[in-house]
Parts: sequence; structure tokens; C-alpha cells
Amino acid sequence: MANPTAAMLVIGDEILSGRTRDANMHFLAGELTKQGITLAEVRIVGDERQDIIDAVRALSDRYDTVFTSGGIGPTHDDITADCIAAAFERHIDVRDDARDLLAAHYKNTGSDLNEARLRMARIPDGAALIDNPVSVAPGFTVDNVHVMAGVPSVFQAMVATILPTLTGGAPLLSQSLRIDRGEGDIAGPLADLADTYADLSIGSYPFQKNGAYGSNIVIRGTDGARIDAAISELAEMFA
Amino acid sequence: MANPTAAMLVIGDEILSGRTRDANMHFLAGELTKQGITLAEVRIVGDERQDIIDAVRALSDRYDTVFTSGGIGPTHDDITADCIAAAFERHIDVRDDARDLLAAHYKNTGSDLNEARLRMARIPDGAALIDNPVSVAPGFTVDNVHVMAGVPSVFQAMVATILPTLTGGAPLLSQSLRIDRGEGDIAGPLADLADTYADLSIGSYPFQKNGAYGSNIVIRGTDGARIDAAISELAEMFA
Repeated sequence: MANPTAAMLVIGDEILSGRTRDANMHFLAGELTKQGITLAEVRIVGDERQDIIDAVRALSDRYDTVFTSGGIGPTHDDITADCIAAAFERHIDVRDDARDLLAAHYKNTGSDLNEARLRMARIPDGAALIDNPVSVAPGFTVDNVHVMAGVPSVFQAMVATILPTLTGGAPLLSQSLRIDRGEGDIAGPLADLADTYADLSIGSYPFQKNGAYGSNIVIRGTDGARIDAAISELAEMFA
Repeated sequence: MANPTAAMLVIGDEILSGRTRDANMHFLAGELTKQGITLAEVRIVGDERQDIIDAVRALSDRYDTVFTSGGIGPTHDDITADCIAAAFERHIDVRDDARDLLAAHYKNTGSDLNEARLRMARIPDGAALIDNPVSVAPGFTVDNVHVMAGVPSVFQAMVATILPTLTGGAPLLSQSLRIDRGEGDIAGPLADLADTYADLSIGSYPFQKNGAYGSNIVIRGTDGARIDAAISELAEMFA
């Protein structure tokens, strides 16, 4: 596919421990697909410095854009900003522009801009801040990596800020057809269809529910007329 | 942590495209945590041969156990078994034991064991089969990698077969305390607590809901008495 590629790095123990179920990845996947950007890989790592650094470097080298979520709050386990700085060999410290944002916010709310909160103003040199309309503490962009919060409401707001700045591809269109037969009966004709329509992506997603079984066939591509043709052909095969 | 480590590799486009939301990862994470095995990393890749091979090798080298899900059905995009064989440089073909399982099953159900279904009997040399009580087509284990189906009911059944064969660590215990203050107010005392209880893992998971905000503090470890002590100390700090 010629569409731009993206990867996501989820940072933190809460998904790996089974404590929470992912929401950000699912949200980002949907938004990128709408914009014609291919989410090609996701990695989830814990709050471990070297793991984060290694993953950021690997994904940044390989894909056009990388999104990270998690680990940019004020607590001792929030080490993402320092890891990103290390990954790109940038200096990091409390930066004036970020501190000013926080200072104004906490002055308004009557809270103290203490040492812990000041950690959220640690921004690598040369990074561009990402606006946080929910709770002010900014994300930031270094090179092709967008560093965002893990709290879903903040993550979603930051994604909404970043997405219009990215060059999308042709929007990915899709149609699906449910076929109430076993995948084993569908697979042969489906492989032939995939050969004929090599420009489209044809996926088979089997289901089993209450004793019924079958498969949802999803045909994806950028040419709506080709998808129409393929779906019609598929429907005829199993009419 | 001295507990055994595990990684998961999710194979397939459906989560990356945003079409489905992950369920298997969340299930596995919970099961491993109960058994005292640390899920240290998750990767999600699409149906791309080299990506799958590279990820399997990287995770198998690094962690004690690897679980994969997806891509072992009968359709043209099910390439996991061949990728696993390539990753471990094993020969792969239709194997008699797997074919016999499928033949008996499809004879019973009156379906044809056609060429597509026979793909599900392709098993790398030396692999041990994993029982599939739901739909018969087996998973398999090569080296430290357990290769399982992506359909959640089948995935869960296969995990139930594998788990008792793994050496677990001391079960991970946890307690949590909800504190209705901003993370910035909690972070300083929390860092001190983390220093005092360096044998425990202390995580802070902020929330914002209907205008209220605060943080759930989760303290994890293998020594229940230590966790009790840390939670009591935490509760006193913010009483």
C-alpha cells in the first residue's frame, strides 16, 4: 500500500497487568483508517526506561509517524518524556513555555505548581508542544514522534490536534459481507477472488456465536468501484 | 521482578484497522497475572510475512514464553504457521496427526476436508499440538512459542490448556486505593512511599469523570503483609 504508515507505542503497566482494557489504540486505529493512514504496528511496553527507548527508536526509524500514549504525568513512574529525549539524544529540562501554561492553569484553579507538577513541563529541546484542552499539561512532538497522555479524554483531544497536520493517503473504503458458512468452505473461492482483485485487501473474520458460525468478509481498498465489483462477485459465489 | 516473563504477538489486520477491539490480550493479561507470570510486552502486526517472523524471533529470544493469536485458519491470509516455521528454520507441511484430527471432525459434521481446510493441518516439524475443544483445528507449540487461534472462544480454550504447563511465579497480589485529589498533589508523597517500599510496584492511574478527578493508586507485589503496610501508610497520608 502506498498510504503513509504509522505505529503506536503504549507505555505503562496497566494494560499489561490486565487491569484496564485498551481504549486508546482502538480509537487511534479508527481515526487513522478514516484518514487513509495505515496503522502498521502497535507495541505495548511497561514503565521500563530501556524498553521505551528501544521501542521508540525502532518504530520511529521504520514508520512515517509514531504516536505514544502514557507516562507523561507528574508521578514517579512517568518517565516517557525523559526516555523520548534519550531516544533522540536531546537535552531535556523544565521548559519555560510549558511551565507558563501550567503556572497559569494552577493559579486559576488555586493549586500549587509543586515539584511533582513541574515534571510535566519537562520537554526535550526543539520539541513542539501539543495542546491539552482537558487538563493543560502538554504533549509534544519530537521528529516524527507524537507524545501524548494515556488518559483517554486527553489522548483523544491530542489526536484531534495532530491529525489535521498529517498528510493522509487516499481514504480507505471498505465493505463487508456476512457469509453463514464455515471458513473452510469459503477459503478456496476467496483466495481466487483475492488473486483477481490483487489491488484490494480481502480479510476473513470468522465468528461462532450461540451455535451459529460463519465469517464476515471485509474488502478494503481506495477504489470504491473495484470494491463494489468484488463484493458483487463474492455475493454471487455464495448466493 | 524475578517472576517468569511472557510476551504476546497479535497477528492480523482487524485490530490495526480499528475494525475490532482487542479481547484476547486483555484476557491473557489477566490470566498471566493471576499465575504470577509477568506479561512484559505485546506487539500487534498485520498479515505480513517478514513482520511476523521478525517479531516472533525478537520476542522468543527475549522472554520466557510467547503467545501468538490469529492467522491459523484456512483462508489465504492465514500465514502464521508458515511464518513460525520460518522463524525457527523448521520444515512445515500437512502433518498426519493434525490431518487425522480434522478428517475425523469433518467426517462427523458431514463437511469436506478440502484443500483450504487442510491448510490448518500444516504444522512445523517437532511442534506439539495444542488441543482445540471448540473447533478442532489445533494450535501448536514450537520452542517457547505457543501459536493459537484469534477467535476468542478458541483462544481462551487454548490458553486454559497451556497455562497449567507453565511454571508460574509467586502470584502477584494487589490492592488499590482511590484518592480524590489531583495526581500533582499525590505525586511527591507517592514517590517517597515508592522509595520506602522499593520491593513493591506502585502505580498511579488518574481519572477524570463528570467533573470529578483523582487517581487510583495500585500497589502490587508478592508479599501481602508489605502491601497491607504500604496501603495503610498511603491512606494515612491522605486521610
